Amino acid sequence: MTIHKHQHIHHTIHDMKSHMHYGWDRDRKPILEIDPGQSVGFEILECSGGQLTRNAKAEALTQLDFETLNPVSGPIYVKGAELGDTLEVEILDFNSLEWGWTGVIPGFGLLAEDFKEPLLKTYDLSHRHKTEFLPGIELFIKPFPGTIGVALPEPGHFSVVPPRKNGGNLDIRHLTAGTKLYLPVWVEGALFSVGDTHAAQGDGEVCGTAIEASMEINVRFKLHKGKRIAEPRYEIPGPPTPEADSRGYYVTTGHGEDLFKASQNAIRYMIEHLVDTYGLTPGDAYMLCSVAVDLRINEIVDAPNWLVSAFLPNAIFK
Amino acid sequence: MTIHKHQHIHHTIHDMKSHMHYGWDRDRKPILEIDPGQSVGFEILECSGGQLTRNAKAEALTQLDFETLNPVSGPIYVKGAELGDTLEVEILDFNSLEWGWTGVIPGFGLLAEDFKEPLLKTYDLSHRHKTEFLPGIELFIKPFPGTIGVALPEPGHFSVVPPRKNGGNLDIRHLTAGTKLYLPVWVEGALFSVGDTHAAQGDGEVCGTAIEASMEINVRFKLHKGKRIAEPRYEIPGPPTPEADSRGYYVTTGHGEDLFKASQNAIRYMIEHLVDTYGLTPGDAYMLCSVAVDLRINEIVDAPNWLVSAFLPNAIFK
Repeated sequence: MTIHKHQHIHHTIHDMKSHMHYGWDRDRKPILEIDPGQSVGFEILECSGGQLTRNAKAEALTQLDFETLNPVSGPIYVKGAELGDTLEVEILDFNSLEWGWTGVIPGFGLLAEDFKEPLLKTYDLSHRHKTEFLPGIELFIKPFPGTIGVALPEPGHFSVVPPRKNGGNLDIRHLTAGTKLYLPVWVEGALFSVGDTHAAQGDGEVCGTAIEASMEINVRFKLHKGKRIAEPRYEIPGPPTPEADSRGYYVTTGHGEDLFKASQNAIRYMIEHLVDTYGLTPGDAYMLCSVAVDLRINEIVDAPNWLVSAFLPNAIFK
Repeated sequence: MTIHKHQHIHHTIHDMKSHMHYGWDRDRKPILEIDPGQSVGFEILECSGGQLTRNAKAEALTQLDFETLNPVSGPIYVKGAELGDTLEVEILDFNSLEWGWTGVIPGFGLLAEDFKEPLLKTYDLSHRHKTEFLPGIELFIKPFPGTIGVALPEPGHFSVVPPRKNGGNLDIRHLTAGTKLYLPVWVEGALFSVGDTHAAQGDGEVCGTAIEASMEINVRFKLHKGKRIAEPRYEIPGPPTPEADSRGYYVTTGHGEDLFKASQNAIRYMIEHLVDTYGLTPGDAYMLCSVAVDLRINEIVDAPNWLVSAFLPNAIFK
């Protein structure tokens, strides 16, 4: 369907189930062709693709079909796009959030060795700005697309799970409304797809899931001819996390020769803090870290030990 | 010298050269004993310990005596502190900043393989809030101690260079005035030392140096008896970087199986951006990344590829 809106052409992609796919493939047939400057709205299914329902129990996570996780909608063919260009994707807005979930899936996540049982939490997302994690803990709703990218130049099918030079499952929490994502174009038409919308997440997405939620996302495309970049970039127009920042942070650190292990320890200490200070269960604390705690690298030069910090925003506590 | 100030006891440590040291040693003799609740002012020499002067040239970096780099002042014996306690260090304020430097030291830094020649930049720090990096680029002065820690429980001398479970060369840019650092106490009296003051730095300190600057730092000590933590923690009372955040960020990303290499690539792309967009030399761009660009881990779960972002604040450009 094509409608005119704000003096430019806007398309809306309905019925994601009819065309959703689970990987990047330069030979996949586009579902829509657009000109640069046009915008597209996508009705995105959350990352289980409908396998989980609002009343699901944690056990449902052990029965997921992994072959059909993290579907994306597309691809969109952008006229004029070719290898060596950059595709700008302006994130316009998000609508129609209803409910969401966060899960610990056995074998998956930063602390998979510590958390071996499935855990599931669901959220009411009908209020616009906040949602309750537990009584006394409210998260800021800051929607963004977890997976957003273009086709790879190499032929064949590439799993949607890892991010690559084409973008993909970036899980960058900062791609909220008003930001611009720059993707390198690798094939004619770019072949853009998007999915895996999140209502909130911390930098790191440590338990492996964010607040996973179906929603509509609207984006506008622009083409930068001859602008060559090696990996995705983005622009944030103002303070990245003003809501979370407002009352400061409690921060744990982890040091070591391996940034991954240092991150694991920083999150372990944060879980300990959440359990000791707020009485959370370890599982709830782990999920709270995934949806609200940010990982930063403070130093990466004082050999042999690097340092990672985990930032817990005070503003989520009443 | 002991003076009374604000109804509590404040000590000032002058003449750092008479007691400065280059490592952590549980058997080192304290220079001062204090009670919890007291505050101490330290007159800190920048990390070359006076080897570099305000008019130094880059070549001076190749002649540094590495054995006497990064001196710290102390140790301070905190009465009542013992293994299993936590020492709180409230960062009160910073004074007497005059000039600073940033250097690329061959063989040292995140991109040591790309930058093999010494580079040195000096700054005028006589204005309170900002300093010029280059015409049109002004950095926010946000002083903090790069190295701050306590003695280790193991006997012997441990180099000051890597951070450890005792704190040390943490290079956490967020330990600015108003924050509180929590250090695990490993030995009787804690044996606190501090040094390596910085006027500004980005998360990562990617070229290996910040804005290195001599200054006075005032801190207040508090003891949390029986509060056991495994590694340092800290608290930030409000937005961590409001000045830098104000006009948003330009962000590059790097992905891969190794967070260190992903960080290298994100910084390489940022250098490319700074060279292309602002006409900086690659060396200046590398140093600018070290003093102003922040590394964040966006996702650490989408196996096998993790994602790191490098955040460049727009607010430093006029």
